[in-house]
Amino acid sequence: MQNKFKNHIYKNLPFLKDKKLLIAISGGVDSVVLAQLLTTLNFTVSLAHCNFQLRGLESDLDEEFVINLGEKLNLQTFTTNVLINPNGSIQLAAREFRYEWFQELIETHNFDFVLTAHHADDILETFLINLTRGSGLDGFTGIPEINGNIIRPLLPFSREEIKAYATSNNISWREDQSNASTKYVRNKIRHQIAPVLKEINPNLLTSFAKTIDNLKESKEIINDRIKDVVKEITTEKDGILKFEISKIQQLKNPKAYLYEILKKYQFTEWNDVFNLLSAQSGKQILSESHILLKDRNFLILSDRDFEIAQEPSYFIHENTKEIKSPIQLTFEEVTQENKQHKNTIYVGAEKLQFPLIVRKWENGDYFYPLGMQGKKKLSKYFKDEKLSLFEKKDLWLLCNSKNEIIWVIGKRQDQRFVSKTASKNIKITLIKHK
Amino acid sequence: MQNKFKNHIYKNLPFLKDKKLLIAISGGVDSVVLAQLLTTLNFTVSLAHCNFQLRGLESDLDEEFVINLGEKLNLQTFTTNVLINPNGSIQLAAREFRYEWFQELIETHNFDFVLTAHHADDILETFLINLTRGSGLDGFTGIPEINGNIIRPLLPFSREEIKAYATSNNISWREDQSNASTKYVRNKIRHQIAPVLKEINPNLLTSFAKTIDNLKESKEIINDRIKDVVKEITTEKDGILKFEISKIQQLKNPKAYLYEILKKYQFTEWNDVFNLLSAQSGKQILSESHILLKDRNFLILSDRDFEIAQEPSYFIHENTKEIKSPIQLTFEEVTQENKQHKNTIYVGAEKLQFPLIVRKWENGDYFYPLGMQGKKKLSKYFKDEKLSLFEKKDLWLLCNSKNEIIWVIGKRQDQRFVSKTASKNIKITLIKHK
Repeated sequence: MQNKFKNHIYKNLPFLKDKKLLIAISGGVDSVVLAQLLTTLNFTVSLAHCNFQLRGLESDLDEEFVINLGEKLNLQTFTTNVLINPNGSIQLAAREFRYEWFQELIETHNFDFVLTAHHADDILETFLINLTRGSGLDGFTGIPEINGNIIRPLLPFSREEIKAYATSNNISWREDQSNASTKYVRNKIRHQIAPVLKEINPNLLTSFAKTIDNLKESKEIINDRIKDVVKEITTEKDGILKFEISKIQQLKNPKAYLYEILKKYQFTEWNDVFNLLSAQSGKQILSESHILLKDRNFLILSDRDFEIAQEPSYFIHENTKEIKSPIQLTFEEVTQENKQHKNTIYVGAEKLQFPLIVRKWENGDYFYPLGMQGKKKLSKYFKDEKLSLFEKKDLWLLCNSKNEIIWVIGKRQDQRFVSKTASKNIKITLIKHK
Repeated sequence: MQNKFKNHIYKNLPFLKDKKLLIAISGGVDSVVLAQLLTTLNFTVSLAHCNFQLRGLESDLDEEFVINLGEKLNLQTFTTNVLINPNGSIQLAAREFRYEWFQELIETHNFDFVLTAHHADDILETFLINLTRGSGLDGFTGIPEINGNIIRPLLPFSREEIKAYATSNNISWREDQSNASTKYVRNKIRHQIAPVLKEINPNLLTSFAKTIDNLKESKEIINDRIKDVVKEITTEKDGILKFEISKIQQLKNPKAYLYEILKKYQFTEWNDVFNLLSAQSGKQILSESHILLKDRNFLILSDRDFEIAQEPSYFIHENTKEIKSPIQLTFEEVTQENKQHKNTIYVGAEKLQFPLIVRKWENGDYFYPLGMQGKKKLSKYFKDEKLSLFEKKDLWLLCNSKNEIIWVIGKRQDQRFVSKTASKNIKITLIKHK
């Protein structure tokens, strides 16, 4: 039994051997088996467990179990304790938090890969969940075994095989008793549908794996075609894409093509997008991130943030007391630092390199938010803070002469420019936001 | 309730109004509702029911029910009574027989379309059946509403909607109690899986219809791409296709492309097909109908029947008593006709137009088999008789000067050349098959 897992890892993931691995572990049978297995193989592993406190005492017992397992296996163990309270699905928010935390651990502790314990039954369940919701090819092509620095070594194996491994190796685990509504759908599929499918075909997971491969191959062919078509219909200038409408209309199914070409730009109203082909010049459709504009014979796609970056930068020289444009800021030397708030920050005078710059944000900008750990992309920060497009558009940054962000004005200061020891601080105040 | 069905038909299938329609009817709620509905709409319909006698008395009661319904609605009703005993699946053989019989009725009675009562739940069930078996995009794109002269007017509606229509219109139907093993899978899916999916999403069939549309669009894009690629890699000469291997190998996923390009030629061993790319020149793969040959830098695809048609034709002039090549036949005038058998036929002398021709069969050949009704494609006849490739290769035809088939030699005589009244018959005997 153990050999099956070992062989798969040696054959398909041989490079894991010499790497520093972080296992995402819940305490459930899958991730505990993964941890035990890789320990048995003498791989270099650590554990990472998120406690979202969604199931009270049970959640704490999971955490305790993982900590004890780490001690028993002599593995470095990271845990984090988070209360999430999202607008949307807790499940989704928890997932996002988890993967973000893993990436942070990777950066901070130089891990090479995060390993998760997803298995073949998870793929089937996800397929069926997407089927109940309505989906398309993208929702039916499974979970990738390798995706960037995330690796899923148990993906070819069934839950049953994993449990058998646990049992035959006297491995204990925590059973997730949760019937929380967020898990309702997956549980129904796991306990009521998958077993019937397996009754019909005892080798279901094997034939299903082949099915997924077939669908992936279909997707590859589509991607090849889309690449050809995009080349054919597109001209690009300064990061703005122009699609020639007459060429789109010559395609056999323009709507299907528009979907495939534009899906990565977060459009959702595909009928509107399609109707744009025959709409009046000047009409446009907005996605979360992009604008699609009908302009005579073209559909013009531009990044909604792009327009923001077109504003000029403003320079602030040493000893300036106040600027009034593009926004009103005052600068004042103070000896003591009062509590900073949204519209006032204190910066160590010795840390400022003039001229300062006031400018709009650009893709790729990052900063070190005060009160958080490490560096963060501005786009990510905006997303976490749920800034609307309009708020993002209105925002200005205060940077030093090296273009490092000192202040996301009116939002959050960068910790690099705070000086606790300085006798001379500069108090910067936003008087009136534009 | 009724309006929903009516509106759909008026809007999407308006051309049915003036056509001669044949409804495939089992006696179950779906097909009975379809018959009642179209009668209410004053469409020109007839009924066709196959009794396969698979469920004893129940099958006969179904037939009786349909005949009574036809009388009640004042519709012409066709029934046929068949015992099938296939090598493979009864379900499949019955389906094939049914559609073939419908096509015969269409030809004989000048129907425009066959209408079947498939509905949205059937699509879902078929999707899930294919999922349990292992499938790919082709198995997930549903049942077409219009396919040649077969039309499915109830396809957008659920079984529930159809039953509600029946109930509110006091329509009675026959419940199929069968749990025959051939229906085992569909029944399990219908009664154990579909209901749970609908609990999870009460609008399942609506979102599922969208899913199917999305997958169909994916398939269209694939077809566009395959067309491009085939054009790029193929040269054709005399119906033989040559694919340039180096160009296939330049594709990102040659195996996926080979599958899409060659699937219509009945290959099944896709690994073998793929390995042919790098095999020794001269190696070949056979499908039921085709040969794929590696020939230096090309894969050459040819019809397995094609080689057969390359043999010359042989002429037989009036008063010939015997030919020895390509096969040995004797011709003898007789006044009375004995029982014909496999190797001897009797033909009305007045019906023979010389010179007769002995030749191999070709695609498109058809004849009027003695003992069957109407005309039949030779390829179809061979299939029904389960002739092996070698038997088909060895076969010769005896034709008249107009190239009409008189005898599939050693197999079956054509009824057009039999003369019950002739005083002079020609007895033709196959002495020795080559």
